[in-house]
Amino acid sequence: MKCELISVGTELLVGDTLNTNVQFLSRELSLLGIRVCFHTTVGDNPQRLEEAVRIAFERSDLIITTGGLGPTQDDLTKEVIAEIFGKKLVQDQKTKDDLMAYFANREFTMTPNNLKQTFIPEGAEILFNPCGTAPGILLREQGRIIIMLPGPPREMTRMFEEAVLPVLQQDHQQLVISRYYNLSDIGESAAEDRLLDLIDTQVNPTIATYAKMGEVLVRITANGHDENEINALLDHYEGIMLSRFEDHIFTFSKASLQETVAELLMTNSITLATAESCSGGLIAAQLTEQPGISKIFGFGLVTYSNEAKMKLLNVSKATLDTYGAVSAETASEMCKNLSALSGARLNVSVTGIAGPDGGSDEKPVGLVYIGICFDDQTEVYRYHFNGDRKVVQQKTANKVFHLIRKTIVDKA
Amino acid sequence: MKCELISVGTELLVGDTLNTNVQFLSRELSLLGIRVCFHTTVGDNPQRLEEAVRIAFERSDLIITTGGLGPTQDDLTKEVIAEIFGKKLVQDQKTKDDLMAYFANREFTMTPNNLKQTFIPEGAEILFNPCGTAPGILLREQGRIIIMLPGPPREMTRMFEEAVLPVLQQDHQQLVISRYYNLSDIGESAAEDRLLDLIDTQVNPTIATYAKMGEVLVRITANGHDENEINALLDHYEGIMLSRFEDHIFTFSKASLQETVAELLMTNSITLATAESCSGGLIAAQLTEQPGISKIFGFGLVTYSNEAKMKLLNVSKATLDTYGAVSAETASEMCKNLSALSGARLNVSVTGIAGPDGGSDEKPVGLVYIGICFDDQTEVYRYHFNGDRKVVQQKTANKVFHLIRKTIVDKA
Repeated sequence: MKCELISVGTELLVGDTLNTNVQFLSRELSLLGIRVCFHTTVGDNPQRLEEAVRIAFERSDLIITTGGLGPTQDDLTKEVIAEIFGKKLVQDQKTKDDLMAYFANREFTMTPNNLKQTFIPEGAEILFNPCGTAPGILLREQGRIIIMLPGPPREMTRMFEEAVLPVLQQDHQQLVISRYYNLSDIGESAAEDRLLDLIDTQVNPTIATYAKMGEVLVRITANGHDENEINALLDHYEGIMLSRFEDHIFTFSKASLQETVAELLMTNSITLATAESCSGGLIAAQLTEQPGISKIFGFGLVTYSNEAKMKLLNVSKATLDTYGAVSAETASEMCKNLSALSGARLNVSVTGIAGPDGGSDEKPVGLVYIGICFDDQTEVYRYHFNGDRKVVQQKTANKVFHLIRKTIVDKA
Repeated sequence: MKCELISVGTELLVGDTLNTNVQFLSRELSLLGIRVCFHTTVGDNPQRLEEAVRIAFERSDLIITTGGLGPTQDDLTKEVIAEIFGKKLVQDQKTKDDLMAYFANREFTMTPNNLKQTFIPEGAEILFNPCGTAPGILLREQGRIIIMLPGPPREMTRMFEEAVLPVLQQDHQQLVISRYYNLSDIGESAAEDRLLDLIDTQVNPTIATYAKMGEVLVRITANGHDENEINALLDHYEGIMLSRFEDHIFTFSKASLQETVAELLMTNSITLATAESCSGGLIAAQLTEQPGISKIFGFGLVTYSNEAKMKLLNVSKATLDTYGAVSAETASEMCKNLSALSGARLNVSVTGIAGPDGGSDEKPVGLVYIGICFDDQTEVYRYHFNGDRKVVQQKTANKVFHLIRKTIVDKA
């Protein structure tokens, strides 16, 4: 099945809006085994939209449009498509009722132009919009399918997942199930490398990796006709994932490393304190982004200067003079003294050189020491991270979250 | 002049890559007064690329392709376009020399397939690539211009700015000059509203706004034939900008608020310390992202719990019991005590309710107190921010940077 995506909206052609819709749809359709061959974008211009739809209809089995379904005069997608295929637009009573209910619930006044959204090309199926007023439309014509979706990404993605995916799966007569594995402490290319034999020969299931700083999300998607068969197939791949990535899988969901670690700390009621030098508060900031974290986090220090390390953490001048601020000895002393000060069960210290200045042959930019003191046992880890200042700081924070998780899993 | 953008690359059609190139080019071309009418994306497939180029050539005066210029067998853009217009590919000696020099400087071994990049359609102009190996190509054919750019955004944007923009300006016989105004403490819609009379009637100069969390960048671009005339026009608009946004303009460049404030602190050698509750270290983290910040920043505290506020900052139990942790009194005491502890000239304290829990009728989620103690003078500011937890934290940090700047500008 060959597919073409048509994006409608002048905001795309003048560069006001980044077209994230085509990436989402391309990824979802590819995972279903549908081949996307063209993306086309046109403005709110009926002639150019007609031209794009006619060209797409010649060369594709499935056409999905996004945008141009709203209440204003600029919104012309269904009008143009109805015209091309000689369909009248007829008012749909259910859609009208839904629209009335939508406005009644919100205590907004409905302007009359909203009623434009209740007119649908005759014979078309209506796709309910769970978070907006413009319904989607599915039209079957000469063995081809034309699907019109709203432009706002939040509306489009939910409509695709809830109303379009089941239709496409049914047309394919297939069920599709995905499982997720989120990995830390491994890069995307290294993760892909361990999966290359499977990726190179993949048919069913398909394997996709998505990299964020410090995380690689692996999605394994299988399709078939029978749920038990699909799950058996996925179980087999789960065995492979576990054997190849055991230590790296921090969650079987899309949750981030920071969310997962915060949850782990809260579930186990493990109190945590931080003392940061080169990461400058980033670890505390990422922790306190998580709702409810005050249950286990109370104390954070950003001891950026030597003076602060001495004054706030009682690090000895002798240690700083003898070994330097960036040393295993300083990291260890920061961590132990933090533990005494905070009374937390888990204490983390960080000291390093984020750059761009301050590096030397002996202590290059990117050198970072991390101390972890858990139940009064202190371990110090040494790393050398590549990248600019911001990257070194982010890699440091990611490593800390990885080490916190590992410490709890191994020792708690 | 009507323009069509053609993006080439299978990674776009399977959704692996977000197409940021078309947004960049659409924006730049629109500002030049060139009308972008279509975006088309095809995979690394010669037939479909040929089809897309032929269709674009029928309906556009300017075609810009991105992608498919690299050294591998998949890279087919110039081969397909040369074939369409009956051009031979001929090796360019200068491009070959540049390529050899590129690899010599990097001490990589050049694989033979790299030489593919030195072959150019006969009669085409070569666009030098300052940060990669694939040169761009400009071809004039039957009164139309076809420009081929590399796909990696970093290479594409620099080549566009350095090699394409001058050609398009010359073709237009126009000079284009932009000025920037970066605003804080104002939302994008409020900023746009103050410029609506100018935006609605804009011809020359054009005005574009770009919003980031806490910042609105305004770009004013004028074109003409004479540099003095253009600058006179821009001076007139600068007067308007200053009168309408005086307090909000923090820099006449694209630099962020955090960069600008860090620079201001460092230039004036003003030392700073922070004590954060609801922002959880975010302010310290944003500060320490800036290179060289250790000159003025040494001390940061994340006093998330009441215990930490008492133990680390000596906030009195009576204040916390009487007024609560989220109060002007606590913010003030945190700030004054931080000043005594840190010895810094400028001290910032933050206490508030980031949510989602912890709010009440009297103290709702989003309530934030910020204390600023400068030269031993303390001021406390009260805000109520809307948004989820992360947004409240980010708005708090942005407000703090805005207040730091205002304090220094007013008092230092």
